[in-house]
Amino acid sequence: MKKITIGIIGFGTVGSGLYRLIRQNGELIGLRKGISVEVKRVCDLRKDYVTKNTENVAVTDRWQDITGDPGIDIVVELIGGLEPAKTIIMEALRGGKSVVTANKKLLAEKGYEIFQSTGKNGVKLGFEAAVGGGIPCILALKQGLVGNKIKSIMGILNGTTNYILTRMDETHRSYEDALREAQQKGFAEADPTADVEGFDAGHKISLLSMIAYGKRVDYSSVLTEGISQINEIDLSYARDMGYVIKLLGIAKETGGVLDIRVHPTMIPMTHPLASVRNEFNAIMYDGDMTDPVILYGKGAGSLPTASAVLSDIIQIAEKMEIQEQALLTSGDAVYIGPESRLSRYYLRIHSHDRPGILSKISGVLGNHGISIASVIQRENVTDDEFLPLIIMTHEAREKDLFEAVKEINDFKFVGKNVVVIRVEDSLQAGEK
Amino acid sequence: MKKITIGIIGFGTVGSGLYRLIRQNGELIGLRKGISVEVKRVCDLRKDYVTKNTENVAVTDRWQDITGDPGIDIVVELIGGLEPAKTIIMEALRGGKSVVTANKKLLAEKGYEIFQSTGKNGVKLGFEAAVGGGIPCILALKQGLVGNKIKSIMGILNGTTNYILTRMDETHRSYEDALREAQQKGFAEADPTADVEGFDAGHKISLLSMIAYGKRVDYSSVLTEGISQINEIDLSYARDMGYVIKLLGIAKETGGVLDIRVHPTMIPMTHPLASVRNEFNAIMYDGDMTDPVILYGKGAGSLPTASAVLSDIIQIAEKMEIQEQALLTSGDAVYIGPESRLSRYYLRIHSHDRPGILSKISGVLGNHGISIASVIQRENVTDDEFLPLIIMTHEAREKDLFEAVKEINDFKFVGKNVVVIRVEDSLQAGEK
Repeated sequence: MKKITIGIIGFGTVGSGLYRLIRQNGELIGLRKGISVEVKRVCDLRKDYVTKNTENVAVTDRWQDITGDPGIDIVVELIGGLEPAKTIIMEALRGGKSVVTANKKLLAEKGYEIFQSTGKNGVKLGFEAAVGGGIPCILALKQGLVGNKIKSIMGILNGTTNYILTRMDETHRSYEDALREAQQKGFAEADPTADVEGFDAGHKISLLSMIAYGKRVDYSSVLTEGISQINEIDLSYARDMGYVIKLLGIAKETGGVLDIRVHPTMIPMTHPLASVRNEFNAIMYDGDMTDPVILYGKGAGSLPTASAVLSDIIQIAEKMEIQEQALLTSGDAVYIGPESRLSRYYLRIHSHDRPGILSKISGVLGNHGISIASVIQRENVTDDEFLPLIIMTHEAREKDLFEAVKEINDFKFVGKNVVVIRVEDSLQAGEK
Repeated sequence: MKKITIGIIGFGTVGSGLYRLIRQNGELIGLRKGISVEVKRVCDLRKDYVTKNTENVAVTDRWQDITGDPGIDIVVELIGGLEPAKTIIMEALRGGKSVVTANKKLLAEKGYEIFQSTGKNGVKLGFEAAVGGGIPCILALKQGLVGNKIKSIMGILNGTTNYILTRMDETHRSYEDALREAQQKGFAEADPTADVEGFDAGHKISLLSMIAYGKRVDYSSVLTEGISQINEIDLSYARDMGYVIKLLGIAKETGGVLDIRVHPTMIPMTHPLASVRNEFNAIMYDGDMTDPVILYGKGAGSLPTASAVLSDIIQIAEKMEIQEQALLTSGDAVYIGPESRLSRYYLRIHSHDRPGILSKISGVLGNHGISIASVIQRENVTDDEFLPLIIMTHEAREKDLFEAVKEINDFKFVGKNVVVIRVEDSLQAGEK
């Protein structure tokens, strides 16, 4: 039996889950792979807490005791955030230790430098746990689809927002109520900004794009739009038209140019991502050989994420001596701009219920070359001063659309800013 | 750049797809992995056809020219069937060459002997393409979920039958009509027996069970039931009750005892496998750490399957020198019998429309300890002599159920044999 020693830095949700997984299934893993994983040392500021919850493990509150321990093969970084995580990882790699991390923020924002430090002297970096929790989505991309050009990636990458949107859709509650419910159930944090504004999903789609396209992706150039402007009536209008609204991370490559973004997106109800409910995550890779391949499961949680960390540990252990390619191989990404980004759009316009308004609005859209696919305006049976007018456009350039929306917002009869939701109906999976 | 030479035996759908994939994406694969894959020799009886469709490739009609070529690193067996495939693979492994194959029938029926011959001298066997076409489901199971006990596997493993059931459900056509349509569209073969009787799915679930549980599984002990007895009215009654009918391969492990089977199964419409339509495949692994993880995609076809073969080739190339564990590690499987297999059941009974019949039938069920959850009997508005009576039972032992069904079949007022469909509603994915 080959023995691998690890040091865990950060004994929180995932770190303690990893410890439990190894205790519980270590024997089975040994039987399957001939590898025995030993937790040699744990670093956490709460030393007593760790000591009380572990057996035969050295405990420290100095991370250098792990990166500097010659008896440790793999450093597992689970503290998150930019620093000191980056210093820890760089120090470990420089010292010839492989690293496993779940730190999507760090890899999305500072990954380039870190990736450059791997692939030498057999030193490896595993980060399956950074995207999709227990779903082996990095493995599927790097190994399973290695023979494919990836035409596009579309994913429900954030469980918090998917839970909120599912509850708004199915129980017709408001965004605020659904968020509060998610917080009560532990699916949303007290400060939900990183989730609801799409930053978390943005980190994940950036990271997936780097792997898929082998290019340095600048996270700050990724368009991120959150869900806080989505109203339950948008979900209900969407359903009337045969769509659901999901917060998607999307990356598409056309002729070497990348389009990477996170935003609420209308997808047809028959789309396989449409049935992904509650806190579940799903990632769809559209390969030029395989056509769409989708992976689905729990995108967070102690044991699912620990399962991903363990999978990295075993893969690194199996290939300990082998040289690998550096991860990024073909320079910096080139991005698409709003001039050439094409989409259909759903517009929710709140306007006074007065004659001639539809003609003025459609006039503005027409002036910008945007044609209307369908309109919903219901009779005003409430006392509301403003009435929602729903317009679905044909395919238009994003630049044109936003110029038109700016003009519409300037109309006096328009009560608040127009809500814009992009529509993706290119892929009807389940069809040829 | 590391160079790997392969020999392809069988230049049919998958073999020619693999050749095309390497031509088209070989450069990209080299960039990603630092590995260049060269097709050195192809073996096929149609030598002229292969010569016409390839460049710089030696062509032979003797497989020994490939297994015996010292310049070939990996033998790719793509002829299918038991012999000569088995002899070819054993000969290659004995000669120290790794093998990649898509041959599910061979591995399910004779895998034990073949698996025993791997894991020595760095000789490896890849068979990602044997299950789920382009979906990396073997990789996910072996590597991604390596830290999990697999509580169960449930899969739509056969595209032909899923296409037929989808068409029956959505267009209300008969089994015969849907089968004919599948044949016209190339989703079913002229002799569809292996697909519609569940043998193909049986091979695949046997193979997945061997990997998941590390045990020798005897294919002949796997229960396989096909879809030819399913009537479009069963799909419509199922939908009324909130279910869809899918041909599932199922493997469950409880206390070291395996339950492996293939049969038409009613699953709730909210189940993630319920939305897998047409010729698509999907596999759900329920891990003790991850909870359900689902993979979805095209389960067949030239390029998707070639993508899986290529993924195996690259993985073997990356780990060429490394010793691996033998695949099966813990003896023979122990199977569950119908005495202890529990399920809910859907029964379609065709009987004369006469008073007292429901009481007699429920009496038989009651005598066998089977209680009824719901009944549908519509008024007879047709001229049919026999009227369908639909009964959904509570959970019952399969042995009891089949004894009761035998008695019901013996009633004179029952027109034809009772149709039995098992119901799986234990897992409501998308829920906590």
